[in-house]
Amino acid sequence: MVLAFPEEYKDRIKRINKRLMSSFEVIEDGNLRAAMTHYPAAGGKRLRPLLTTIVAEAVGGKADDAIPFGIALEMIHNFTLVHDDVMDEDETRRGIPTVHAKWGLPEAILAGDAMFARAFEVVLESDVDDASAVKLVDILARSVRLLAEGQQMDMDFERKKTVTTKDYLKMIERKTAVLYSAAAQAGAIVGGGNENQEEAMFEYGRLMGLGFQIWDDVLDLTSTQEAFGKPVLNDIRNGKKTLIVVNALEDLKGKDRAEFLKVLGKKNATARELTRARDILDQVGSIDHATRVANELVAGAKEQLHVLRPSKHKDALKVFADYVVTRKA
Amino acid sequence: MVLAFPEEYKDRIKRINKRLMSSFEVIEDGNLRAAMTHYPAAGGKRLRPLLTTIVAEAVGGKADDAIPFGIALEMIHNFTLVHDDVMDEDETRRGIPTVHAKWGLPEAILAGDAMFARAFEVVLESDVDDASAVKLVDILARSVRLLAEGQQMDMDFERKKTVTTKDYLKMIERKTAVLYSAAAQAGAIVGGGNENQEEAMFEYGRLMGLGFQIWDDVLDLTSTQEAFGKPVLNDIRNGKKTLIVVNALEDLKGKDRAEFLKVLGKKNATARELTRARDILDQVGSIDHATRVANELVAGAKEQLHVLRPSKHKDALKVFADYVVTRKA
Repeated sequence: MVLAFPEEYKDRIKRINKRLMSSFEVIEDGNLRAAMTHYPAAGGKRLRPLLTTIVAEAVGGKADDAIPFGIALEMIHNFTLVHDDVMDEDETRRGIPTVHAKWGLPEAILAGDAMFARAFEVVLESDVDDASAVKLVDILARSVRLLAEGQQMDMDFERKKTVTTKDYLKMIERKTAVLYSAAAQAGAIVGGGNENQEEAMFEYGRLMGLGFQIWDDVLDLTSTQEAFGKPVLNDIRNGKKTLIVVNALEDLKGKDRAEFLKVLGKKNATARELTRARDILDQVGSIDHATRVANELVAGAKEQLHVLRPSKHKDALKVFADYVVTRKA
Repeated sequence: MVLAFPEEYKDRIKRINKRLMSSFEVIEDGNLRAAMTHYPAAGGKRLRPLLTTIVAEAVGGKADDAIPFGIALEMIHNFTLVHDDVMDEDETRRGIPTVHAKWGLPEAILAGDAMFARAFEVVLESDVDDASAVKLVDILARSVRLLAEGQQMDMDFERKKTVTTKDYLKMIERKTAVLYSAAAQAGAIVGGGNENQEEAMFEYGRLMGLGFQIWDDVLDLTSTQEAFGKPVLNDIRNGKKTLIVVNALEDLKGKDRAEFLKVLGKKNATARELTRARDILDQVGSIDHATRVANELVAGAKEQLHVLRPSKHKDALKVFADYVVTRKA
């Protein structure tokens, strides 16, 4: 039986969206509230809340019990987008003005901070015993601290000459995978899973999150703006040391290497230069290499599912993992 | 018996500082860690951690059990300073460069975020049962969300023509008092106080925090840079709608009013203009009025102490409240 993912969860995503948006109502000031809801209201796949609810079901719990934690993760994710856009001085995000472009820098910093704080209030709305609530808070706090450390590494990489595969994986583990491992681990806790399941779900989320980021890097090079939903070839322009670039720089020599390095991080690179740089990465085999690594990571993620009894929810987690490295957007 | 406050707590403040600084060691990146510790390492009175530990003792608990929550508050306080300095574009704070002046904007935003996250990890180091831990997290999360709402009000006030006393009190309740009420309430929880004591301690902290902020506004007008430890007459230059200004604008008429309004918010005002504006506030009785209000609030705070049995810790809380509206810095 093939699950249509994520279409099958349309109703659940609606419930998640409703609860997410209503979680901002407590904010009195209309301006601050508008800045906080700007990205969440613009949509999103809600993969993290979805993951946390499906894992909760897969260990025998109820999906809706995991929604508060999922929403907290979504708030944290959106708060990092707001602050990252300020740091990167990006004026648009997926076709809409960024928060600081629309409301100014102070408001953007504040809106991010308020979302961050609100996430910790929302987590405590989870219908779990106190011991589990403490664990959920611990997971969330640790995740956000690691996110900040990952963002620091990402910024450092832009200035660094040499970045190894190990460095890159550590960075994306913190910057991306941490919210997926948190989602899956928390789902196991809320759903009443045992310790063994909790650990396996953490690892499932971590491996899937790594695969997610590497596949995102691949899409930046192989997709079109129309399909991807955001401008492509941006990572080259911004000089991002993705796995693809790290791998290519280990192999590239001579004229190709020189030509590629000239374009990497060139903010005003032409479409022609960017396409040529992409072709160099392709010819040296680095895009294929990254695709292979992403698939291996997701295969590893799926192996972790052996701790779960057969169920349609377990099947959904397999399909979820595959979706992460086959999606077009 | 007169307590020498806060000198009597010198050893405790040393312990607080040691634990505070060691709480940053988990941060791997040296640059990020340096930005995070920049303000905490520059010193500070540590009034919030001190308050939380003394309240814990006053309800029959141990001071050191309350140190993690106190440190979390200190981290939150310092994180708001880092982000507020970015929003206000301040280049120095108490004689040292601000975090963004020294490390740049992205690093300052990130350092603030990381301190924020770390605070929630540190709270969970409290040696309390899970039910109390959940309450502590709830208090902290709510406080930070209100802080952001208070900062929003403060920014709005600079643009607003009319601010009432009620508006002003609501703003400082969120922006300043919330960390004092949190400190005192959490101290009661950690120390094992009953519900009645917990509520009274919240109110004690709230009233004291309001008094603290109003007294700070008074010091900005009546102190010298040498005694205050930071530039004076800054609130007039920045157009802050303090209680003193709000009260004066209700009474000032004619030439004095016009003259005062010309200087309020004038970024390049001369020392002569600022002094004249201060004198206008003084002559209309608004500085005396604010001093009276601050003292009344602190008297109200002390009344809340009736829920505590007589002890030297209860005495210390009286002296603490008086200190807040008699301090010179």
